Amino acid sequence: MRSALPKVLHPLGGQPLLAHVIQTAQTLSPDRIIVVHGHGGDQVRAALSQAPVMWVEQTEQLGTGHAVTQALPEAGPDDRVLVLYGDVPLVGKESLERLLQALDDHDLSVQTMMLEDPTGYGRILRDPKGQPQRIVEQKDASTEERAIREVNTGFMAAHRRHLEDWLGRVDRNNAQGEYYLTDCIALAAGDGARVAAVVADDPEQFQGVNDRVQLAALERAYQRRQAEILMRAGVSVRDPARLDIRGAVTAGQDVTLDVNVILEGDVTLGEGVSVGAHCVLRNVSVGPGTIIQPHCILEDATIGADARIGPFARIRPGTELAAGVHVGNFVEIKKSRVGEGSKVNHLSYLGDSQVGRGVNVGAGTITCNYDGANKHLTVIGDGAFIGSNTALVAPVTVGEGATIGAGSTINADAPAGQLTLTRAPLETRADWQRPTKKGG
Amino acid sequence: MRSALPKVLHPLGGQPLLAHVIQTAQTLSPDRIIVVHGHGGDQVRAALSQAPVMWVEQTEQLGTGHAVTQALPEAGPDDRVLVLYGDVPLVGKESLERLLQALDDHDLSVQTMMLEDPTGYGRILRDPKGQPQRIVEQKDASTEERAIREVNTGFMAAHRRHLEDWLGRVDRNNAQGEYYLTDCIALAAGDGARVAAVVADDPEQFQGVNDRVQLAALERAYQRRQAEILMRAGVSVRDPARLDIRGAVTAGQDVTLDVNVILEGDVTLGEGVSVGAHCVLRNVSVGPGTIIQPHCILEDATIGADARIGPFARIRPGTELAAGVHVGNFVEIKKSRVGEGSKVNHLSYLGDSQVGRGVNVGAGTITCNYDGANKHLTVIGDGAFIGSNTALVAPVTVGEGATIGAGSTINADAPAGQLTLTRAPLETRADWQRPTKKGG
Amino acid sequence: MRSALPKVLHPLGGQPLLAHVIQTAQTLSPDRIIVVHGHGGDQVRAALSQAPVMWVEQTEQLGTGHAVTQALPEAGPDDRVLVLYGDVPLVGKESLERLLQALDDHDLSVQTMMLEDPTGYGRILRDPKGQPQRIVEQKDASTEERAIREVNTGFMAAHRRHLEDWLGRVDRNNAQGEYYLTDCIALAAGDGARVAAVVADDPEQFQGVNDRVQLAALERAYQRRQAEILMRAGVSVRDPARLDIRGAVTAGQDVTLDVNVILEGDVTLGEGVSVGAHCVLRNVSVGPGTIIQPHCILEDATIGADARIGPFARIRPGTELAAGVHVGNFVEIKKSRVGEGSKVNHLSYLGDSQVGRGVNVGAGTITCNYDGANKHLTVIGDGAFIGSNTALVAPVTVGEGATIGAGSTINADAPAGQLTLTRAPLETRADWQRPTKKGG
Repeated sequence: MRSALPKVLHPLGGQPLLAHVIQTAQTLSPDRIIVVHGHGGDQVRAALSQAPVMWVEQTEQLGTGHAVTQALPEAGPDDRVLVLYGDVPLVGKESLERLLQALDDHDLSVQTMMLEDPTGYGRILRDPKGQPQRIVEQKDASTEERAIREVNTGFMAAHRRHLEDWLGRVDRNNAQGEYYLTDCIALAAGDGARVAAVVADDPEQFQGVNDRVQLAALERAYQRRQAEILMRAGVSVRDPARLDIRGAVTAGQDVTLDVNVILEGDVTLGEGVSVGAHCVLRNVSVGPGTIIQPHCILEDATIGADARIGPFARIRPGTELAAGVHVGNFVEIKKSRVGEGSKVNHLSYLGDSQVGRGVNVGAGTITCNYDGANKHLTVIGDGAFIGSNTALVAPVTVGEGATIGAGSTINADAPAGQLTLTRAPLETRADWQRPTKKGG
Repeated sequence: MRSALPKVLHPLGGQPLLAHVIQTAQTLSPDRIIVVHGHGGDQVRAALSQAPVMWVEQTEQLGTGHAVTQALPEAGPDDRVLVLYGDVPLVGKESLERLLQALDDHDLSVQTMMLEDPTGYGRILRDPKGQPQRIVEQKDASTEERAIREVNTGFMAAHRRHLEDWLGRVDRNNAQGEYYLTDCIALAAGDGARVAAVVADDPEQFQGVNDRVQLAALERAYQRRQAEILMRAGVSVRDPARLDIRGAVTAGQDVTLDVNVILEGDVTLGEGVSVGAHCVLRNVSVGPGTIIQPHCILEDATIGADARIGPFARIRPGTELAAGVHVGNFVEIKKSRVGEGSKVNHLSYLGDSQVGRGVNVGAGTITCNYDGANKHLTVIGDGAFIGSNTALVAPVTVGEGATIGAGSTINADAPAGQLTLTRAPLETRADWQRPTKKGG
Repeated sequence: MRSALPKVLHPLGGQPLLAHVIQTAQTLSPDRIIVVHGHGGDQVRAALSQAPVMWVEQTEQLGTGHAVTQALPEAGPDDRVLVLYGDVPLVGKESLERLLQALDDHDLSVQTMMLEDPTGYGRILRDPKGQPQRIVEQKDASTEERAIREVNTGFMAAHRRHLEDWLGRVDRNNAQGEYYLTDCIALAAGDGARVAAVVADDPEQFQGVNDRVQLAALERAYQRRQAEILMRAGVSVRDPARLDIRGAVTAGQDVTLDVNVILEGDVTLGEGVSVGAHCVLRNVSVGPGTIIQPHCILEDATIGADARIGPFARIRPGTELAAGVHVGNFVEIKKSRVGEGSKVNHLSYLGDSQVGRGVNVGAGTITCNYDGANKHLTVIGDGAFIGSNTALVAPVTVGEGATIGAGSTINADAPAGQLTLTRAPLETRADWQRPTKKGG
């Protein structure tokens, strides 16, 4: 990967590759999930410290068989063991279930896939009855064997006792000097054990990541799937190739996502919500009927129903906008609550504020919430009208129904129902001469 | 579609599916266009109330043959009848003309297409001379018949009298219990009528929409076509896969559209206009030579020649910018006229204003156009200079050649040629102590 | 192309088609590069006036052979001559080297390629031993010849003396009445000269541009290649289909480029830099660890390490931001230096300014740098705190550690360490009545 980040921590759909694999493993409700790690293990364990897994270190890199051997002591003696890979993130629950179900009447089940071009992969050799016999690696394969299009994915399931037996007999007499997990197949077949080779419906699930080019390709595959899931659930996606889901999205019926939308973290979109082109939403809940116009960025916020946001609005963490709120262009709102039907339509900054219902915040309004050391609160009562180009120097309270004159700097509370302003006298200087261009 | 919106009202290229079909039908200059609707008819009729069509309700959903039967009384007795589908929006004029022309020496013409994978479609059975005999549905087809790759599109043309005859004899003895329009083919062939099966050059035209995944695919097909039409007309499109046309675009030679541009409604772009990446233009006319930088949104506006807009500019409805106007970043202009060569370059809001020629509007200028109840006009004369961070409290007039001092709040007319300002005295408080961080 | 711009000046990856060809030619370290031009030559020469090439005008358009004949006098008598095309921009150095190397044991080398659909191209006729004999054009080809999939690319190499000999014997007895360069092959073969036909590994390299549709396709091919080069070098590209490189990018390890990033000119990104979605960077250097959030535009600027820019920030030419600077939303910075750790987080304009270290510039701060005639400097000392909604009327200096009160208009120097402000008195008008909605 040419990266300081361990491969399995590179993100796919906003989450580490390994997290995808663990989440899919969890859907099988296993007794335990054991992650074998080698190089960079501390970084991996730290990044996924919340994951419900057991960590096992493989101190020497002696091959896939050796890696599984490290994990086996953690499995129960009669457990079925399913081998997954931290860099094969798209594998689906159904595929894994089929592999496990094959153990009902087999001793070993191996996931295979058919490839147009199998070059580089281990080929599945079957006997004339179709029984899998062994896997032959590319470099050892005869011309005839190389023509075989069924290849090994590496995914495998067996009972712990069988795996222990076979892995105990695997040797490292090969070019790599490694213990290969795949050697179990020949050992099992040689013992007369029943080996199932389950062919994948969908080889894309078993694509691994070896470099950033492959990672980017898998990212697109992942995103196409996410888009299709949303569309099948009743979401209109203007261009499925230009949608990025990096987390979990819950969307009501008739939600529309325009081009180049990015949804990160937990995003909930109510019925009929429209998200405009080029918007980024992260950990946001949006009430039904709300329209988010193009070029907005919303993060860690809750937006009520029938609101209208943007374009060019930025909603920052800790913001709650009630139903029917309008937030317009070049407006930033941070850690604020804005009441029903209030409007902040132009070029304003609201930080650390509590704004009531039916308030009109004029263009160019700034809450001066930071004094260089501490943040302070601005409170604006219901129905207040804040004239344009006003600075509200927090802590400050504007009373209910108060009006603030345009261009004011308000550094004391403004009483309810009255007009408060600062206003220097207007003067005209008739003798004034405009500056002239200086010679360059 | 899993939608509260009837399928034929889902948008493609910004217009309902059905509107595309009606527009294409209109290009044939038919005597009349009859739309047969069932479920959701009121919503469809309301959405397309301006469409020059006759609406016929099919109260019972008894199949395609039944639907056409409802419409026939509205056709003239000797009329040729062409059957189109509200959910097949990409069909082209030339295809329909070929279908109609086939009636010159046939009694019935049927549009077919060749598919790599015909699964699910009705296959066209031809006799050894190549004459179409009937259509066999997937479920009734023999293995041999299933290998036929020529399938029915549903598009059909015949004279009214013939259709009436055949449809009168169609029965509903089938699994669905419906009257099938396609049964006319076997009836016509049985009568010895001349049946033409016209094979499509371009099967994409006959793709229908059954779910949002198909709709998204058709949207992309539609957009690729739009991009290609523009490119062939002399427009440079940086990435045809990232251009969205949702309306009608008229573009002069050497127009450039950068990536992720969205054009909605009626958009006219003069020769040499450049539209930057991530811009959205809706109902906008742009004069030749004008450069719109990235990240702009323009709506219901007229922009003159050689103007320079953006980046991050928002031009709202009712705005007219004359030639050579510069609008810069984080600037919003609404319902305003701005004269030749004037500049509004930074962080400003102009609403309900008339700005003369050669005006310089400084950074952070706000027209306070709304008093909480009414909108008022700001007039700025030719050659005026508005100092930065100024609030113009409308109604207000700034005279020709007037200068407004920075940081002013102007609530009365400023005379021409003079300096007008509000300015509180500067004071320095030497004893002042900065606040200190409070313990958390 | 339907363009006022000569075809070879249309941009690919931000540079004229011809510039790509010249740059690739330069990588071969040739004695000289000769560009033969016809129509529009002056415009081409002007656009590429810095290119290290000799310009030769072909006054009459008498074909490719005639064009090469115009250039030959400029070549040394024993020179190897390589023929390239100004509208075939993706050709790679390795391909050209192979063509030249073939001259080690051949007299003429011709670049060919295998096409699935060779329609329209001249086919390569080889004798039974595989020796190239001649090229047959589409219109003259027999049915058998048309089945040949090996076609001519037009790229060719030979010694000057050979070319001169063959071109001297080429006639124009053809439909076009032109001298064809490709006729040299038959003449050479007829002479018993050794002709090499080198088959391309990668036909995409030899695609030419005849219209804007082909240009757009080549642009995408070019961009895919650029993205892959970056990914192989250790850059994470979220979507290679949505990345536009229009210049030269130098990127450290673990740089991340999110979707729809556009990089223009010379862009240098330090290790671990993250560029958010929808950003445009032109001629920018960014220090390691810096995060550029979505929707930013940076141009002709230098950004230090561990800075945080955006979202919605615009950095304009002549800006230098030191390490750890924070620039937030709706902020424009032009021709300014900002010192280490300073913050300009909201809705501000800094133009022509020098800002020290550890400065906090409050929301809505505007440097009034333009007086209508001249630009003036704003200097802000280390550790100063600029209250929100402040206008700094340049030329002006804010001293070290000074504080500016919110809402001030500062038109004189503010002393170090003290609070300076303008503040009109706050007044409340109890008798004030809100305006009421006027009847429409």
